[in-house]
Amino acid sequence: MQTRVPFSPVIVGAMRLGSWGAGFDTKQYRTFIEQCVEMGATTFDHADIYGHFTTEEEFGNALKEAPGLRDKIQIITKCGIRFQSENRPENRIKSYDSSKEYIIESVEKSLKALGTDHIDVLLIHRPDFLMDPDEISEAVQILNEQDKIIDFGVSNFSPAQFDLMNDKVALCTNQVEVSLGQRKAFTDGTIDQCHRYRLPIMAWSPLGGGRFFSENPDAETERILLAAKPLCEKYECSLDQLLLAFLNAHPTGILPVIGTSKSQRVWAAMEAMKIKLEREDWYILWEAAEGKEVA
Amino acid sequence: MQTRVPFSPVIVGAMRLGSWGAGFDTKQYRTFIEQCVEMGATTFDHADIYGHFTTEEEFGNALKEAPGLRDKIQIITKCGIRFQSENRPENRIKSYDSSKEYIIESVEKSLKALGTDHIDVLLIHRPDFLMDPDEISEAVQILNEQDKIIDFGVSNFSPAQFDLMNDKVALCTNQVEVSLGQRKAFTDGTIDQCHRYRLPIMAWSPLGGGRFFSENPDAETERILLAAKPLCEKYECSLDQLLLAFLNAHPTGILPVIGTSKSQRVWAAMEAMKIKLEREDWYILWEAAEGKEVA
Amino acid sequence: MQTRVPFSPVIVGAMRLGSWGAGFDTKQYRTFIEQCVEMGATTFDHADIYGHFTTEEEFGNALKEAPGLRDKIQIITKCGIRFQSENRPENRIKSYDSSKEYIIESVEKSLKALGTDHIDVLLIHRPDFLMDPDEISEAVQILNEQDKIIDFGVSNFSPAQFDLMNDKVALCTNQVEVSLGQRKAFTDGTIDQCHRYRLPIMAWSPLGGGRFFSENPDAETERILLAAKPLCEKYECSLDQLLLAFLNAHPTGILPVIGTSKSQRVWAAMEAMKIKLEREDWYILWEAAEGKEVA
Repeated sequence: MQTRVPFSPVIVGAMRLGSWGAGFDTKQYRTFIEQCVEMGATTFDHADIYGHFTTEEEFGNALKEAPGLRDKIQIITKCGIRFQSENRPENRIKSYDSSKEYIIESVEKSLKALGTDHIDVLLIHRPDFLMDPDEISEAVQILNEQDKIIDFGVSNFSPAQFDLMNDKVALCTNQVEVSLGQRKAFTDGTIDQCHRYRLPIMAWSPLGGGRFFSENPDAETERILLAAKPLCEKYECSLDQLLLAFLNAHPTGILPVIGTSKSQRVWAAMEAMKIKLEREDWYILWEAAEGKEVA
Repeated sequence: MQTRVPFSPVIVGAMRLGSWGAGFDTKQYRTFIEQCVEMGATTFDHADIYGHFTTEEEFGNALKEAPGLRDKIQIITKCGIRFQSENRPENRIKSYDSSKEYIIESVEKSLKALGTDHIDVLLIHRPDFLMDPDEISEAVQILNEQDKIIDFGVSNFSPAQFDLMNDKVALCTNQVEVSLGQRKAFTDGTIDQCHRYRLPIMAWSPLGGGRFFSENPDAETERILLAAKPLCEKYECSLDQLLLAFLNAHPTGILPVIGTSKSQRVWAAMEAMKIKLEREDWYILWEAAEGKEVA
Repeated sequence: MQTRVPFSPVIVGAMRLGSWGAGFDTKQYRTFIEQCVEMGATTFDHADIYGHFTTEEEFGNALKEAPGLRDKIQIITKCGIRFQSENRPENRIKSYDSSKEYIIESVEKSLKALGTDHIDVLLIHRPDFLMDPDEISEAVQILNEQDKIIDFGVSNFSPAQFDLMNDKVALCTNQVEVSLGQRKAFTDGTIDQCHRYRLPIMAWSPLGGGRFFSENPDAETERILLAAKPLCEKYECSLDQLLLAFLNAHPTGILPVIGTSKSQRVWAAMEAMKIKLEREDWYILWEAAEGKEVA
């Protein structure tokens, strides 16, 4: 697996496009996808579970109506989380499954739902405590040989879990929660590891959830807001853009997965990628979040 | 050191056979050992310190009385913990010692006590903060060349300590505390590391101590008991067996070290190894212990 | 970079020689340096920031007045911390900077201040979250080729950060805070890592700061003082010397960075290196600090 899928600077998260959010109809999906592609945001991030196992299919319906659109985008999807749903009556509880059979079956379903012959990048959604790297590797090899997936990675893996898997299949990324408001990946070795292997890191929840728009912000949030204000003026950008610039300033260029159904927000995110945060400004934000100077 | 000792599916812990527990006499030791062997539980786990440095010798006395028995079993023993005891008057306090001289001297004593010419697997009992891998490696090489030990491993080592030692001598296992009630090794990289190196993990206290038989169980224990009940019915097994099946379900097949002096419990443990826990049932137990669904 | 700088058994910390402490004049620096060299304490530990960016220059002035003195010593210095100071008006806040330009510029300044043509060992002072190992490696290579630095290492790096950097440039040390009163580096993999790579560890604050001379010692300090007393008698040494012997007992021979302006304390530290702490005595100290026996 030598090919490496090129990602757009901003990855568009599909999680909230369907029933878990905007509730798009086929036309809205198509318009949104086409607008993203127009802006250069061509990589879309899915998971089989989004919308209770319905979002991939809705997205796929839009692709079907727009000939040629599939070839202009890269599709990431994930597998491995099971939970109770009328669309998956066989699941009794929420659990992880990274067995060979389940991975292959899940990819087949995703391909059918998305109406495509290949997924650009398949990710294991969460680290299954029972994962067998040999078994996962077999599944990946089969799917790869059948041209059903191009590249393979993981999500939410600890450094030890990443190494366990990476020894068998060269992973292309670790998609983790990281933002100015959620800095653990900066200090626990997660980002250092991908950096060491020269792999892109994908950041989910790159804006830190809704905390910055809360009516009762906690102390950390208040400190960040205070520190961000003059920087937003300096860089002539919004708070969201500043938060993305904070991630993009890392030498690996952390790729944000933007969870929005509004194309203007995707556009704003793409614009944010042009901001070159000065080092001291990065540390102003870090120190505001930490509530203290660096040592 | 290419030979790898084959372990029985259940390892019989000798810690509580002597003065730290059942107080077996020679006949009882012999009967117990022979019954275990009969069942296929042929690997016995010792440490020099058990019974205040007396259990190895008692065990050895039983072997002497039963010609041929030694050849049917594998003996693991450990060294490196010192503490005050009338049998070790030279020790002033509890401490660790992994010096070359101490390891060799300890093995000589174990060999004499057990009345055998070799130990199948020698483990360093606890990570000595002053351990010198070069020195330990010399001791292991000497003992190995003299056919006094076949294989070598560690116990209670962190991943960093394991790597420090493993770089010098190929370790055969890390024997750690792990059970449904003590899950740290699943998340801190300990199990991932042995898995990565394709080494068996040995679990001490695989049933989580006596907590499940406490009169005042804590909240976690209560949740586990509640979740386990229908699963015991489903798999037609006891709680103990379910707890062992939980460990055995891991792809590395975590080897339980059973601390019992009752042969029927060894038998029950051997039977438990036949249980194939379904993935969702494994997660039912995990989530009950954690008190929440997986993410 | 094959040459490895030989360090003296005790490293003399220059942090408190100037305005951050003793406030030495040029004559006092010279006398102190010459006395240290006389005793065999030939390695001096600097950082650009000490004395608000003034100590290197003061030290350099003393070297200029004593022909031949430079050749008798090894100079460690560090870079990468920026903070507000009238001597660095361009800095707006405290932050880290490990950009190629900044490292080279910082070394040029240190060379000029110290009045020397080379620094023996350059350390990155703190792990910059934005560090780019490729960029740092370029800076190191340039400085190395120009004979401006001989060797290169880091300070206060986590194991993951160390590996990230060490993959690009073979590091010669990790200078970290470690002492009987600050034991984290013994358990979090930091010391294990340098041990594994057979690299010397440097300990800053090896005596644990002023806690042992506090009027209101905390419980841990009291336990240590109590345990240390009979050992000081046994080894005929001071508390400080015992604390250094504790570090030196580690098989890597942890090198203490002694922050003093009194040559008799440097002498006492050099003497402490001759103490061979017995293993049990080491554990007496460890257990006193932990407040419990080892497991």
